[in-house]
Amino acid sequence: MRIAVVGSGALGLYYGSMLQKAGNDVHFLLRRDYEAIVTKGLVVHSVNGDYLLPEVKGYRQPEEIGKVDLVLVGLKTFANQRFRELIEPLVDRDTLILTLQNGLGNEEELAEIFGDERVMGGVAYLLSNRGEPGVLHHLGEGRVILGGLFPGDMKKVEKVAPVFQAAGIECRVVSDLKKAKWEKLAWNVPFNGICALAKKPVNEILCMDASRRLVTDMMREVIDAANAQGLEKDISVSFAEKLVNFSIGLGDYKPSMLIDRFEGRPLELEAIFGKPLAAGKRKGVNMPRVETLFALLQLTENV
Amino acid sequence: MRIAVVGSGALGLYYGSMLQKAGNDVHFLLRRDYEAIVTKGLVVHSVNGDYLLPEVKGYRQPEEIGKVDLVLVGLKTFANQRFRELIEPLVDRDTLILTLQNGLGNEEELAEIFGDERVMGGVAYLLSNRGEPGVLHHLGEGRVILGGLFPGDMKKVEKVAPVFQAAGIECRVVSDLKKAKWEKLAWNVPFNGICALAKKPVNEILCMDASRRLVTDMMREVIDAANAQGLEKDISVSFAEKLVNFSIGLGDYKPSMLIDRFEGRPLELEAIFGKPLAAGKRKGVNMPRVETLFALLQLTENV
Repeated sequence: MRIAVVGSGALGLYYGSMLQKAGNDVHFLLRRDYEAIVTKGLVVHSVNGDYLLPEVKGYRQPEEIGKVDLVLVGLKTFANQRFRELIEPLVDRDTLILTLQNGLGNEEELAEIFGDERVMGGVAYLLSNRGEPGVLHHLGEGRVILGGLFPGDMKKVEKVAPVFQAAGIECRVVSDLKKAKWEKLAWNVPFNGICALAKKPVNEILCMDASRRLVTDMMREVIDAANAQGLEKDISVSFAEKLVNFSIGLGDYKPSMLIDRFEGRPLELEAIFGKPLAAGKRKGVNMPRVETLFALLQLTENV
Repeated sequence: MRIAVVGSGALGLYYGSMLQKAGNDVHFLLRRDYEAIVTKGLVVHSVNGDYLLPEVKGYRQPEEIGKVDLVLVGLKTFANQRFRELIEPLVDRDTLILTLQNGLGNEEELAEIFGDERVMGGVAYLLSNRGEPGVLHHLGEGRVILGGLFPGDMKKVEKVAPVFQAAGIECRVVSDLKKAKWEKLAWNVPFNGICALAKKPVNEILCMDASRRLVTDMMREVIDAANAQGLEKDISVSFAEKLVNFSIGLGDYKPSMLIDRFEGRPLELEAIFGKPLAAGKRKGVNMPRVETLFALLQLTENV
């Protein structure tokens, strides 16, 4: 399959490299890592075994790539206003656009430009950080959830899921992608937000009583908002405790928003906080803790 | 009146200097400013006109001061565990101990050591910051509210209020000091907390929609908790809007907790957050925003 990776950060590089390793024709739109990757290839230090892709097709402009079968969108959501400019040159009649970005609203924004019939969403559970240019650290997880969001999505899923599975990527197909997206938000909202605000990794949030309780309470607010959206099946309240227990195993992992902050990038506040809060409010769900964290993050974004 | 100031920071120095200027025999227990003040006196740059006290009685140990009629406690609340050591040497049979410290619990902690009959509380509305050693900046306000908290308090108030008033300090006497303390908390909780967390002065909190709304919502939580404590008369909900409007006039004022943070001191979290939250919880009042801010402050206290 001819694939373009738009937004070749920690997520785009990981899935793109796995797909290339399996024989797909993968084209990476690069910025920071362009020089390093086109000259020396990509090194992936992975929990599943390191690998090197000595030849990687890297580009600075989407026009150089041309049309593809699948666009994999790994852009930071604060760059979503560049969707048209970065993706349009890649899109042919049958091109599918898969976003694995964080938070809510990305699929809708893509669909507004390129049409429902081309766009599909997914959820990635991946622990990865970029190292020096040309080096990627895959620290754990890696599974992708694909599923229905727009009408006719399952047909797109049937085309894409086997490509991921054939590349050794754990890929689960669900009928209710909305639920999967909110389940990921239940982790992203407290951990991305609190870690970024406090400039501390996951374990330092969990080792203090007050903040561990805050994480759990905030997850419950997200779950309440999720269940008000009309999911096929409700997320259970005990999901919060499950997530917290799982997170203890993450040690000193730095969520992406903390890394964005350390590296001076904008934060993905709208997709991870603004849109979920608005969705909760539309259904009359009160989310005071999430709202507080959102306000404080906006206030401290550039500090 | 023979007066000892214990905790000669921005508050202790201001009221102590005003009381000395009016002819009282004031003794300051000093740390940071000892050298400067005993050699050169105290300069006060005040909105009401600058003044210099060329001779100030400064001490390093309370034993050097001896017994007094009134102990004015201006200590940071995180130093409350030093009450006995710092105040006991000053206390005679008829000595009164007046605390103007922030938050809840200080009067009770003093009363436990020295007895109800000696201790009285007050609320200070004072905008002042310390400058270089020996220099105090009085930026605005200055009024003190004295009133009943323990039985028999009004008799103590009758002794102390005239001394303050004679020194040109606006001093209001109220029958319900508890209400006055919670009214000050309604300002202290959001502004001290948010400014300290965001490392920004008052106007930068108020100029952003989300954080201004957060301030107001948080004030409402404090007012709810206050009104559940059985005040003589409830604090009205519109008090929050009044406080926010008043605060716009404060410009780039830095609340004491922000200054504590900038200067690397501990934060007065227990008196301003922990105790009010516990008081709310005892009465079944939910304070999710205050709780969130408290947890985040604990997490970032030493960052």
